[in-house]
Amino acid sequence: MANNISAPIPEKTVERLSEYRRTLLSCHRQGITHIFSHVLAGMHGITAVQVRRDLMLIGFSSDTKKGYDVKVLIDFINNILDSETTTNIAIIGMGHLAQAITKYFNSKGLKLRIIASFDVDPAKVGHIIDDIPCYHMDQFEDKVENLDISIVIVSSPTEVATELVVPIINAGIKGVLNFTSVPLNFPQGIVVENYDITTILEKVAYFVKVNEENNNNN
Amino acid sequence: MANNISAPIPEKTVERLSEYRRTLLSCHRQGITHIFSHVLAGMHGITAVQVRRDLMLIGFSSDTKKGYDVKVLIDFINNILDSETTTNIAIIGMGHLAQAITKYFNSKGLKLRIIASFDVDPAKVGHIIDDIPCYHMDQFEDKVENLDISIVIVSSPTEVATELVVPIINAGIKGVLNFTSVPLNFPQGIVVENYDITTILEKVAYFVKVNEENNNNN
Repeated sequence: MANNISAPIPEKTVERLSEYRRTLLSCHRQGITHIFSHVLAGMHGITAVQVRRDLMLIGFSSDTKKGYDVKVLIDFINNILDSETTTNIAIIGMGHLAQAITKYFNSKGLKLRIIASFDVDPAKVGHIIDDIPCYHMDQFEDKVENLDISIVIVSSPTEVATELVVPIINAGIKGVLNFTSVPLNFPQGIVVENYDITTILEKVAYFVKVNEENNNNN
Repeated sequence: MANNISAPIPEKTVERLSEYRRTLLSCHRQGITHIFSHVLAGMHGITAVQVRRDLMLIGFSSDTKKGYDVKVLIDFINNILDSETTTNIAIIGMGHLAQAITKYFNSKGLKLRIIASFDVDPAKVGHIIDDIPCYHMDQFEDKVENLDISIVIVSSPTEVATELVVPIINAGIKGVLNFTSVPLNFPQGIVVENYDITTILEKVAYFVKVNEENNNNN
């Protein structure tokens, strides 16, 4: 049962909750039952204040003598982040990146599952690639409905990405993770995250450059 | 020649500058010479105020009658984001994701180049994979020095990722983009971006869930 949350949690907090959960799951597998906020914080390179603020925001209070109960906190975060049923995801454009993501992602046993891919390449359409079927883009709307797919990952060639916007809207998709180099815009009500790996690498490179310039000036 | 910037630009602005540049390069290839802030904003699903604020922050002022000069703005952003020479990048763990990233990234003709990979798998070490040599991890420090590598992408199995921290520090690496599921911490002076695709997909799924709950409550 989801808590009745009226306002959504800030994006950065959602990202950190996802990260805390992975760390907590790893602790749980190692038999660790309790963890202090400063230990969890240290593992993520942030302050204990930040961790406590995030958990306060979702209404989690802890036994401070032994730290947070790992299992209880995992369940609490599950309740915030996850839907009650598995969320089905499709991937559009079954190239190298898509195949790598599918392999990586479906091996993790999450409540999110990539269950189908779409492409126009005759060498791919009609085949099972990385354990999921690859359908022709022509079947997109039908399959989204029949397979109850609510999220798509777009990893098509950048040149055709904007042509996918209308089919995605028409199919009733609720969330889009876009890995192409062109930003995609959707009407309100459809969640979109435009995410080009180039951006993050250029960001790292920029801050490396700034550090070097500061070192040279000192 | 880099402008003498004392304070670094905020992370989110750096990300947007990287994104604006890709859009502007695409416009330039199509023969578009000028673009208004509201057009650039529309292509990125943000407000014109945001675009103007970002460009003001980097000291760019425009001819408002015809909009921004596309070529001049590209050069201006190049000057902010890029180093004067090509930045060499290595990738640790040459699995499927790494190969997909290398193919994708090196096809783009950027000032960032992935020039070497490192692995421990005898099937990969000593071979050229996706046009770059794959070396054994034992050679990491030597190769980083000889090949003038300043940034690494970590895409090793999550289980061994933390073992890479000391070699990365010892080799004098300045920036790290970490794609594994375990957050890596480095001393001050090394830029690190921990980036698990699971986080971003869980974020999309969370906001889809919030939208659905709000729709059900209305």
